[in-house]
Formats: sequence, structure tokens, C-alpha cells
Amino acid sequence: MRWDFRYFATIMSDLHLLSPEGFRAAGVYAGIKSRAVPDLGLLICERSAAAAAAFTTNKVFAAPIKVGREHIRDGRLRGVVVNAGNANACTGRQGEKDARWMCVIAGNAIGCDPAEILPSSTGIIGRLMPMGKIESGIAAAGQALGDSVEHALSFADAILTTDTKRKSAATRFKIGREMVTLAGVCKGSGMIGPRMAVPHATMLAYLTTDADVRPAQLRKLMASACERSFNAVTVDDHTSTNDTAAILASGLSGKLDSERAVKSFAAALDEVCQSLAYQIAADGEGATKVVKIIVSGAASQSAANAMARAIANSPLVKCAMNGNDPNWGRIVSAAGLAGVTFDPEKATLKLQGTVVFRNGQPVAFDGAAVSKALAAPEVVAHLSCRMGNAEATIWTCDLSKDYVTINADYHT
Amino acid sequence: MRWDFRYFATIMSDLHLLSPEGFRAAGVYAGIKSRAVPDLGLLICERSAAAAAAFTTNKVFAAPIKVGREHIRDGRLRGVVVNAGNANACTGRQGEKDARWMCVIAGNAIGCDPAEILPSSTGIIGRLMPMGKIESGIAAAGQALGDSVEHALSFADAILTTDTKRKSAATRFKIGREMVTLAGVCKGSGMIGPRMAVPHATMLAYLTTDADVRPAQLRKLMASACERSFNAVTVDDHTSTNDTAAILASGLSGKLDSERAVKSFAAALDEVCQSLAYQIAADGEGATKVVKIIVSGAASQSAANAMARAIANSPLVKCAMNGNDPNWGRIVSAAGLAGVTFDPEKATLKLQGTVVFRNGQPVAFDGAAVSKALAAPEVVAHLSCRMGNAEATIWTCDLSKDYVTINADYHT
Repeated sequence: MRWDFRYFATIMSDLHLLSPEGFRAAGVYAGIKSRAVPDLGLLICERSAAAAAAFTTNKVFAAPIKVGREHIRDGRLRGVVVNAGNANACTGRQGEKDARWMCVIAGNAIGCDPAEILPSSTGIIGRLMPMGKIESGIAAAGQALGDSVEHALSFADAILTTDTKRKSAATRFKIGREMVTLAGVCKGSGMIGPRMAVPHATMLAYLTTDADVRPAQLRKLMASACERSFNAVTVDDHTSTNDTAAILASGLSGKLDSERAVKSFAAALDEVCQSLAYQIAADGEGATKVVKIIVSGAASQSAANAMARAIANSPLVKCAMNGNDPNWGRIVSAAGLAGVTFDPEKATLKLQGTVVFRNGQPVAFDGAAVSKALAAPEVVAHLSCRMGNAEATIWTCDLSKDYVTINADYHT
Repeated sequence: MRWDFRYFATIMSDLHLLSPEGFRAAGVYAGIKSRAVPDLGLLICERSAAAAAAFTTNKVFAAPIKVGREHIRDGRLRGVVVNAGNANACTGRQGEKDARWMCVIAGNAIGCDPAEILPSSTGIIGRLMPMGKIESGIAAAGQALGDSVEHALSFADAILTTDTKRKSAATRFKIGREMVTLAGVCKGSGMIGPRMAVPHATMLAYLTTDADVRPAQLRKLMASACERSFNAVTVDDHTSTNDTAAILASGLSGKLDSERAVKSFAAALDEVCQSLAYQIAADGEGATKVVKIIVSGAASQSAANAMARAIANSPLVKCAMNGNDPNWGRIVSAAGLAGVTFDPEKATLKLQGTVVFRNGQPVAFDGAAVSKALAAPEVVAHLSCRMGNAEATIWTCDLSKDYVTINADYHT
């Protein structure tokens, strides 16, 4: 087994989304999904939280994205209301009204201004929201709020769609003498190719912390963390209409008042965001394994990103990974098609640690052994370019027949 | 049945690759493929032909591409030598020597300079060429040359790899009083996402004509035709290491000495290239249907191209097409992620002629009827943007479980 346990260490602890001081949550079944599983979540902070969020860069963005952008502008939130089963995207003016109304209802439930609520939706595109169900669902969630692990789990479940697994991560660290907790949950399985302005997919991620951090600072830290996590995961490179990653900081614990404190917080944020992103890749639609693409020695950061993304998104590479096939030609040629500076004569490719290509030429290797190594739940393909010092890591998954099954029959 | 017969009319005639005056060809089994089917082809012109070619833009290009670029530089060729089963890509200096040696042997076989031969290879990446088999294969093909329909077909077969069908097209038109013939064959099924500088895939295409056309003129006409045909087809958007499209003009018939003659020739060239490109989409790996994406009313040509390509390459869109699923949200959101000017509030989407989305909102439609219409062998999705006058058409195919089967098990 080759899981990179770095990405899972934190989720095996007893920490959860509501471990940071000052948060409560609930997840209820509002009747939006056909199956009776939680489909409406409410996450609130007891006080006005410093907040930052990143949203999809897709020109076709859902109504809650439009409303969310407005509500996050002042860097403060009291809560998040989110539903699964309906994306409220491509729903025109009525959709926008519905997203605003969700905030009104949620604001009533917890006693705050609607503008202090961030709305999110995920699910089918192009259907009007069942607002009766949404309204009673939000009211029920408002009644059900709590800060136990069960409450955290029910919220985590309420945001899932085609996900097969709940996704969460948390960590704890010290700022001065104070213990600070940072936690998060996310969802995402298909339509994953975030390019959020800071991240993207219908990837939804919500993070909580009790750190005391200014909104502007939080925005900057979140942007940077997203770039190296949610924006570095791809399942099908289809930037969703609804991608959202938000963080709320209650300020009830350690203050980021020193460079050292900021560094500790940034490291914790990276850890949690990367764990969540990794879990998305691992639960990619039809995925049988995580494929980690590392491109090093690139001429520039954008070249490294472009090559890593081209490799990670090639259906030919993803099918080869599904078949445990050390077909390295597809990987090298995917780097070559990215349209950036790249010279195969200088490049080396390693599959699961075995050099299979060096300086423009094949290297003899034990095909059966490498194929066996590719059968692991985590596969690493490392292309080193000898063109410069830039490096990028992208997490993806293989492309299986199940991906086709899931996506050929999802809607109708 | 909804095949667009425009694209097939020409291939149902009795014209073929060797119908233009002055050409001979052969396809033989050289033993490169494991199955005993033609895998080595030789196409020659009796005299020095005006010639033009477009090659892959992939930074990882095969040895024959490097040699071919040199040999085409003066705009003249005597012939083409091509093998299937081995791409001669990522094979370093030995690969380049082998590609040059293929030209020497072919030159010997037909009595010309090696620099008058364009070499091509297609097949597995990263294996040295079996030069013994190649040499005797070229010699055998040299002996077998002829201009019958059988000769044309054996050459067309010799270039195939995962293709399930032979691909050819031809047309005949008048320049003044002279009858001019233009014909072509091609291959391509997977690793199709040509961006040739003019086109790309391992798409290989060879065209013959007896028109009398200057090399510079031919280059310009070929570039333009490729942009609207081979560069407008995508199966998996994976620009190959070996993509080549070449045309040889024997000059034995009508001369392009008037604007009208040039126009006639350009129209014929478009017709043949588009027929060939369409056949590639129709035979895409695992394809059950051709999906034609039209984006009109875009703000610029590059915006139209980017949106059409983003839709055509979305695995979610392609899976929906496989499932006859009128999941238009995936199409509209794919346009939105292309990173170009697009406003869903102004857009209209038609699936098989039925409006399903207009001005940012869903339009009620008969889901069962549209789903039934999507079960046709050709599906048209037309997105009109109301942003400008630019238009692009891209041909692709659906994504089926068979694509995964073919590509998870191709190599090992």
C-alpha cells in the first residue's frame, strides 16, 4: 500500500469541523435529493467571523455564487447555508431570488443579517430550487444546530452528491501559548477541475478556525492555500458553475500577531486544504487510485503548472493508469502538448520511482514490476525537465469505465 | 438516421487516392504489427510533385517529423513512406537515423534522392524501429507499386492502427476545360486533438492531386484547409507526437492560374479534408456517434474556437452524449470555463434543433424526445452567443466505456 499518509494523518484524529471554538452546525434531509440522506446544511459562528472565500472562475456561475461574492465582500460572515441535489445554476432571475431567500431564512434561523450568510448549492444544473423544501429544511437545521462530532458529520454529509465518502480534515497547533484549531470539510467527485479565483470544481469546501485573524490577511492566506490544494486537483478538468471554498475564523483563540504565528497558521491551512483536495482526487468519479503528477525543473511556474495539468487531464494517461500500464509515451507527449517550453532531450520521467525515460530516450525497465507498482492506491509520475527551478504538483485519479457509467446516466 | 451525408458523398464515388494522374502506391505487411495486415505503405509521384505538409505542434515530436520538416522545406517531394505499429518517437539519435534510413531505402526503391521522401510513422511510442523488417518492407512495397483501386486501398490500410475503418475521400472538379482530381486517405482514432502548425493527432493524412499548383500556393491552401478540418476534430485532445498531413500535386492537369481556379481548388480541398476529419471523429476510439459542436455569435474567432473545443473535450459532455442525456448544463458550463468572453444571459443552446436553454435560463422541452434524438449517429449541439459574428465548428465523438477498455489495455 502506498497511500501518502501525510494527507490522512489529521483526519484520523478526533478533531472535526466543530472543534474550533465558536461554531455549531447541522445537516438535515430537506427532501431535495430523492434518497433520504442529509441534503441541507447550516454552519454558523456564534459571533461575527472573519471570513474569506474563493469562487469558480466559470463565466457560467450559479446564483449562490453571485450572492456569495456580495456577502463575502466585507470579509465577515455569521454562517453558511448549503444544499445538495440542485445547483441553482442557469436558473436566471428566479434563481438569484431563491439564493437570496435562502440567506434570509438562514439569517432568521440564527438571528443575523442575510448579508452575513454565504449560500452554496450543488447538484443538477438548470432546475429551479424547490423552495418550500429548502425553507423548511433551513428552519429544521436551525433547530438542530449543535457542536458535537455528530453535528459535524451531518453537515459534512449534507454537502455530498456523487461522492462515495465523507471528506474532512483538521489540525491543531500553537500560537504563543494558545492552542488553535483549524478544520474543514469538502465535497467533490466529478466536475472537478477547479480554477477558482482563488479555487474551483463542484467542489465545495468549508473551513473553520478559532484563530484571530484579520479578514484581509485571511483572504491572502486562503488564496495562497487554495492555489496549492483545491486548484491543484482535477478529475475531469471541468470547472464547475458552483465551486466555493470558504473559511470562517471565530477569533476566540490565538491571534496572528507575529510572522511566526502567520507561518504556523499558513502551514496548518496548507495541511488541511491539501488533505481535503487529496480526498477529492481519491474519491474522483469511478477512481480506483490517486495519481500524483509532479513536474520539476520547469522553466517557469506557469510552465510547470501547464505541463502537470496537461498530463493529469489526458484521458490517455488516465486510462493507462487505470490499466496499470507503464505507457510513459503518453505522459511525455502530454507534457509536450502543453504549449510551454519543454525539451524531451533534457527530461527524465519516473513512474513509481523507476526511471522509464531519460534525455529523450527510453530506459529499459522491468515492465511487469512497474505495472505491479502502478496497481497501488497512489501512483506518482515525476517528470523532471532540467529547464529551470519551477515545480508543480497536481493530484488526479485514473479514468475507469465507472466514470463513464456514472456520467452517461447521471441526469436523465 | 442523421449522418450528414455531405461528408460522405465523395467517398461513395469510384474515385480513390490514385485517381489523380501521376501517382502509384502500395501497402504491404512488413511484420511490424503482430497481426498480418498491411503496416508499411509507399506512395509515389512519377515526377517531382509540388508538396506541402503540416506537422504536430507537440514539443515531443517523433523522428520522422524532424526529418519530414527538412524534406518538405523546398516544397517538392517524390513520395511518402509510412509505417504503422511503431511511432519512432522518443527514440533519440537512433530513431533519427532510422527515419533517415527509411528515406534512403525508399529513394533507392523508386530512384530518387532521399530528401524527396517524406517519412511517417505511427504506433507505440518509445521503441526502436525494427529496421530489418522496415527495409525489406519498403523494398517489397517498391516492387508492388501500382495505380489500381486495390493499390490505393492497400496503402490506406497500411497506415491504420486502432482505427476500425479505412478512411478516404476524393472529388473531381474543372479548372477551365481540364478535369482535376483531388483525393486523400487518413488514419486516426485515438490520441486525436490535432493542433498542427497547420494540423495534428496521431492523425496521418495524405492527399494527392493532379492540379498544377506552385509549392508556396499549395502550402497556403493546405494550411487554411487543415485549420477547418483536421485541426477541428478532437477525440481526446491529446496532440500526438506524429501528426502529419501532406499533399502532393503532380501538376499533370489543370493549372491554378486564375482566382477562380484557386477558389475551385480550395473548395475541393476543404471538401476532401473535412470528409477525412469527419471520418476520424466517427471512428474515434469507442465512439458510438459523431458530435458536432457549433459555436456561433462569438466575440472573436479565438473565443469561438476555445468554447467549441472546451465543449468538445469535456468528458462530462462526451459521457452525456454517450448516454443520450440532454444534460445541457454541462455544455453551457463548458463554454463558460473556456476563459473567453461569454455571457450565458445572452446565449441560446440547441440540441438536435431543440432549444433547451435561452438567455441564462432553462427552456422547458420534451426530455424523452430530445434523448431519442440524441441517439442518432450524428448529434449537433449549437451554442449561439450573441456577442459577435465569429463561428467555429468542431467534430468530436462521445466517450464510452469502450474508450477506456481500448486505452487501459493498449500497451502492456
